[in-house]
Amino acid sequence: MEEAAAAHPYVPRDLKLPGYVPISMSMSTILAVYLGASLFVVTFVWFLLGRKKAHLDRLLMCWWAFTGLTHMVLEGKEYSKGDSRYAGRDSAVIAVEGITAVIEGPACLLAVYAIAKGKSYSYVLQLAISLGQLYGCLVYFITAFLEGDNFATNSFYYYSYYVGANGWWVLIPLLISYRCWNKICESANGVETKMKKKIR
Amino acid sequence: MEEAAAAHPYVPRDLKLPGYVPISMSMSTILAVYLGASLFVVTFVWFLLGRKKAHLDRLLMCWWAFTGLTHMVLEGKEYSKGDSRYAGRDSAVIAVEGITAVIEGPACLLAVYAIAKGKSYSYVLQLAISLGQLYGCLVYFITAFLEGDNFATNSFYYYSYYVGANGWWVLIPLLISYRCWNKICESANGVETKMKKKIR
Repeated sequence: MEEAAAAHPYVPRDLKLPGYVPISMSMSTILAVYLGASLFVVTFVWFLLGRKKAHLDRLLMCWWAFTGLTHMVLEGKEYSKGDSRYAGRDSAVIAVEGITAVIEGPACLLAVYAIAKGKSYSYVLQLAISLGQLYGCLVYFITAFLEGDNFATNSFYYYSYYVGANGWWVLIPLLISYRCWNKICESANGVETKMKKKIR
Repeated sequence: MEEAAAAHPYVPRDLKLPGYVPISMSMSTILAVYLGASLFVVTFVWFLLGRKKAHLDRLLMCWWAFTGLTHMVLEGKEYSKGDSRYAGRDSAVIAVEGITAVIEGPACLLAVYAIAKGKSYSYVLQLAISLGQLYGCLVYFITAFLEGDNFATNSFYYYSYYVGANGWWVLIPLLISYRCWNKICESANGVETKMKKKIR
């Protein structure tokens, strides 16, 4: 038991990972590649795609490009130190990650385009994706809690990956949802006022 | 093993349900109470709350009242014949049901009010709840599939409860999402046109 447990770095130690192959890159390499690639994408979006837009729209375009690519390409092995359910192929985590990668990822890139082109579906699309991200986080945290909340290799990974990294995907979608909700209500109010004026 | 398995009617037969108490009502009684109560709510909403509204709005108010109360009060024991993960307290199912009961249930009742009063947040609220219902169904079906899709007592319950009942919560939210999305885009377009006219 102890021998088998020592074969991978994840917690709980008795988690069985048949066919486990250790990560060939170090933590710092993986994080450097991830942060470097993200910085490149954000710079590209800020200075090229968003060059004619207001600052808030540019910032939002950077967020959507960054989160979209993260959803679609992020590899779970390093992150599993914060939550071994990724390496263990937990069905709730796979379901949420699948929805996020297949539906929300491409939708995030569509949001970059929608903001750039000032499309009429821009706010409602951003709201829909943000609510999806929030729903995913809720399922993710609730299932972890119900199953004992003991999936992090140690408290450093628990707070930096599981709490810290995910915290951004709670905070930013909440802010975006709030803004888009208000924008949509303002539009609805505007059209209503217009229609009332017509009737008079 | 066989003795323990015979104590509850759910599948897989070796599912352990410590503290299981059999349902005291028959299937027909439970369904009659559920359908009777639903019919009462729908009639009440149709003839009283919705009496001054257009037919589609009345229908939507009935749907939101029905689905909201279903989310908040439905008891899982009879439904577990279609999916034993309810009785077995599977964490993904509990997470989705928790979000649905605590957040979406009350939001559905707010949607009845919003349609009745013609609030500006009516469409965006209906869209948000419908997307939540669709996300929940996705997590629900994907996790069942990943875990072997063997949770129904027999194929009658599989098709009537698991597929049939849930099918409505895929179809109707899809239709409502489509409608609300278009309405929101129309409003956004309307405000944009108005602003362009002002600038000229």
